[in-house]
Amino acid sequence: MTTASTSGLMAQLRDIVGKDYVLTQDDGADLRAWELDWRGRERGRALAVVRPASTREVAEVVKACAAARAAIVPQGGNTGMVVGSTPDTSGTQVVLSLTRLNKVRQLDPGNMTITVDAGCVLQTLQEECEKAGFLFPLSLASEGSCTIGGNLGTNAGGTQVVRYGNTRELCLGLEVVTAQGEIWDGLLGLRKDNTGYDLRHLFIGSEGTLGIITGATMKIYPLPKSQLTAFAALPSLEAAVQLLGLAHEHLSAGLTGFEVMGQFALSLVNKHFPQQRVPFWQESPWCVVLENSDNESEEHARAQFERLLEAAMEAGCVTDAVVAENLSQAKALWHIRESIPLAQAQEGLNIKHDISINVSRIPAFVAETNALLEQQFPGARLVTYGHLGDGNLHYNVQAPEGVDQKRFLAEQEAPMNQVVYAVVDRYRGSISAEHGIGSLKIDKLPEHKSPVALGLMRNIKQALDPLNLMNPGKLLHTENP
Amino acid sequence: MTTASTSGLMAQLRDIVGKDYVLTQDDGADLRAWELDWRGRERGRALAVVRPASTREVAEVVKACAAARAAIVPQGGNTGMVVGSTPDTSGTQVVLSLTRLNKVRQLDPGNMTITVDAGCVLQTLQEECEKAGFLFPLSLASEGSCTIGGNLGTNAGGTQVVRYGNTRELCLGLEVVTAQGEIWDGLLGLRKDNTGYDLRHLFIGSEGTLGIITGATMKIYPLPKSQLTAFAALPSLEAAVQLLGLAHEHLSAGLTGFEVMGQFALSLVNKHFPQQRVPFWQESPWCVVLENSDNESEEHARAQFERLLEAAMEAGCVTDAVVAENLSQAKALWHIRESIPLAQAQEGLNIKHDISINVSRIPAFVAETNALLEQQFPGARLVTYGHLGDGNLHYNVQAPEGVDQKRFLAEQEAPMNQVVYAVVDRYRGSISAEHGIGSLKIDKLPEHKSPVALGLMRNIKQALDPLNLMNPGKLLHTENP
Repeated sequence: MTTASTSGLMAQLRDIVGKDYVLTQDDGADLRAWELDWRGRERGRALAVVRPASTREVAEVVKACAAARAAIVPQGGNTGMVVGSTPDTSGTQVVLSLTRLNKVRQLDPGNMTITVDAGCVLQTLQEECEKAGFLFPLSLASEGSCTIGGNLGTNAGGTQVVRYGNTRELCLGLEVVTAQGEIWDGLLGLRKDNTGYDLRHLFIGSEGTLGIITGATMKIYPLPKSQLTAFAALPSLEAAVQLLGLAHEHLSAGLTGFEVMGQFALSLVNKHFPQQRVPFWQESPWCVVLENSDNESEEHARAQFERLLEAAMEAGCVTDAVVAENLSQAKALWHIRESIPLAQAQEGLNIKHDISINVSRIPAFVAETNALLEQQFPGARLVTYGHLGDGNLHYNVQAPEGVDQKRFLAEQEAPMNQVVYAVVDRYRGSISAEHGIGSLKIDKLPEHKSPVALGLMRNIKQALDPLNLMNPGKLLHTENP
Repeated sequence: MTTASTSGLMAQLRDIVGKDYVLTQDDGADLRAWELDWRGRERGRALAVVRPASTREVAEVVKACAAARAAIVPQGGNTGMVVGSTPDTSGTQVVLSLTRLNKVRQLDPGNMTITVDAGCVLQTLQEECEKAGFLFPLSLASEGSCTIGGNLGTNAGGTQVVRYGNTRELCLGLEVVTAQGEIWDGLLGLRKDNTGYDLRHLFIGSEGTLGIITGATMKIYPLPKSQLTAFAALPSLEAAVQLLGLAHEHLSAGLTGFEVMGQFALSLVNKHFPQQRVPFWQESPWCVVLENSDNESEEHARAQFERLLEAAMEAGCVTDAVVAENLSQAKALWHIRESIPLAQAQEGLNIKHDISINVSRIPAFVAETNALLEQQFPGARLVTYGHLGDGNLHYNVQAPEGVDQKRFLAEQEAPMNQVVYAVVDRYRGSISAEHGIGSLKIDKLPEHKSPVALGLMRNIKQALDPLNLMNPGKLLHTENP
């Protein structure tokens, strides 16, 4: 892009969104918040950060950028885990921030839906629903700053997937600005609509590479009358899978959380946050947090939970368990699970694997991969935890004690990924269960995805974004036209 | 296609699938079962009916047809409602029947999934799951002959959608033969997989126009311990929406069925099947069948149901209700609902509208459309019933009493569709909630779908099937290359 055409584009963008909402380095703006990824792994350089306030403005920005052949990086709360919403280092990409599109458009109690701008913060959405007596069940660590548009673009998961599905499963309709700057108004609140290809699901999880989500209609649910939490000690991972089956049988859709935590992961919580008083961890190789949401009463939920735990103890898959007596105890138990990533960070650098495997094969997968890692990376410490209810493990690895952590990461991350992902492939699992691909795993994807699938993806990308201007360098390697 | 190239293709197809499995009119075969659509509206003429026995054979058939530029019409049980799985009248299209791919590949209890060939009959799948103690919840009128591949290709709905979603929501993985005859093995049983565009959802509901589904991994659920059915009388459609809200609140995910039936629809069941003893219909403008599935006990389900019905009576939205005492009573109540289409057919020809509207707006929609129809088509009799829990009404119209029915249909179907669909548009509803588009509604779609959506669909079709050989003339008007 020539300097002249750049300044022409900047003038156009300022016309569209107002001069205060086009930020550039040249004007002395500090763009770090938009250029640095959430985990602080990479800092890019943006040609500009543009902050439109409406869908119409987004469409005009896209048209102007397309005419100038400037690539666009859509960005919500910028809390992604795989460097998917920040620009590359070329200084030629425009960051299009959606955070000013932050209105709740409509909550329809009779239809059990809420329609919102893409830039709505997840927590705002949760709170709006709760005020009206409803639950918006998507829940994840960054809910205070991530946006629903980002959740949709990356098909975020979280801790309630076992009951409510991923973000994808919560979405009934979308509003999208296409790569050509057209507005697709697919903001329907329908549970059934068989009138053509499901464009909604194509845009969800496409990480901004096909178009820009500007609004969504999401499902909401009646607030449960009671939510109970239990914490159980288990002799093995096989026992955890068995407990999960029993929980499905006993609680059915009442089972809204099922998180597994390995002993070493819990030992780190105990070490770095001793005030948390982690139960059972010393004598148990595995623990599980379970949640039972009930539409009837706390009494009923408790009786159900007790029956489940009795059955599990009889079957030998639970050795000890505690059910929270009140909300603050429940929060404390959940807090242990939520503290694992923090404890892990306190302990030092680590190599993260966000993988999924068929639930039934997880014990075998973990045994096999553990053995390989212990053999090839002696001393490496395995921090295993995650959403067992969805077959999603955070199978992370901490450097051995006493070694230079930075060096360990620099030298071992690639070969270790190789080992782990090879077993994932053999188990027909996924190398990215809930975090997506972004630019972090873009080189890995072709090694693990079928060439037929990649070919189909490339054809679709080419068909919808022939100029390759929508978040290039993310998700899928594409060629410029 | 020249005669020479046709006979060349036939020889190739016989080589691939065996000579007994290529049927042609020229060989004296009776192809009616494959050429005539389920509702008997249209009979096409096939170049041949090909019946491969494996995914590999399907792929080779597609390659041979692509090389010969012969269009392919994939067909499962051929029970679709919109003439989507039969050939046109040109005699140039090859019907590819999937019914010989009918194996259950694997039931994985620990992963709660079943993997099957596309040609598996839905009822077989239900029975296989039940034998293993699981529920496969998809349930619809044609379950004895429709196939899971057809259910996926059309994203079938049915009576359990309020709890379990459409076929789409039950599918975790697909195996698909692309338009180029490549096999995409996406048969994963993962609950979470964020590694690229969701090809699965793109093929689901695409009515065979993008590729051919040959296998699927579907979710299964623990069998409920108890399923109770209630039949309630209601003063208005507004009351039905209110009851639905209360049912969600009281039963949560236990609510597995919520079907509404208008008085005239029930009067037809009473008239044509008097042995069925329809409760409440004479004094109630609307009735509802509800189902409560419980993982605990029949006693618990009954207590829940009673609390719900008490609350509903107190709120004035239910005037009378009966809860089935046993399974045969429950079946009898469901049978009333299931008999409406049959009673309607007994009464004579009718004009069908398979529409969906946001649940909250259904009463206003029905009032408005009824008034318009009564004004413009005096005497037309409205048979309104359907899956209110999903906002899906079968808003059908019976000819006035005493008029020539064939003539009424011939003259009034088009203008009546015009009126109904115009209101659907104003209410932002769908002109095909669960039946799809096929060739029956292909001309209607452009009038009711946004041009942006249609443009995106056309680009995708062009990208995945550039030769336009996959079920052309269905779903979307496309141009031959």
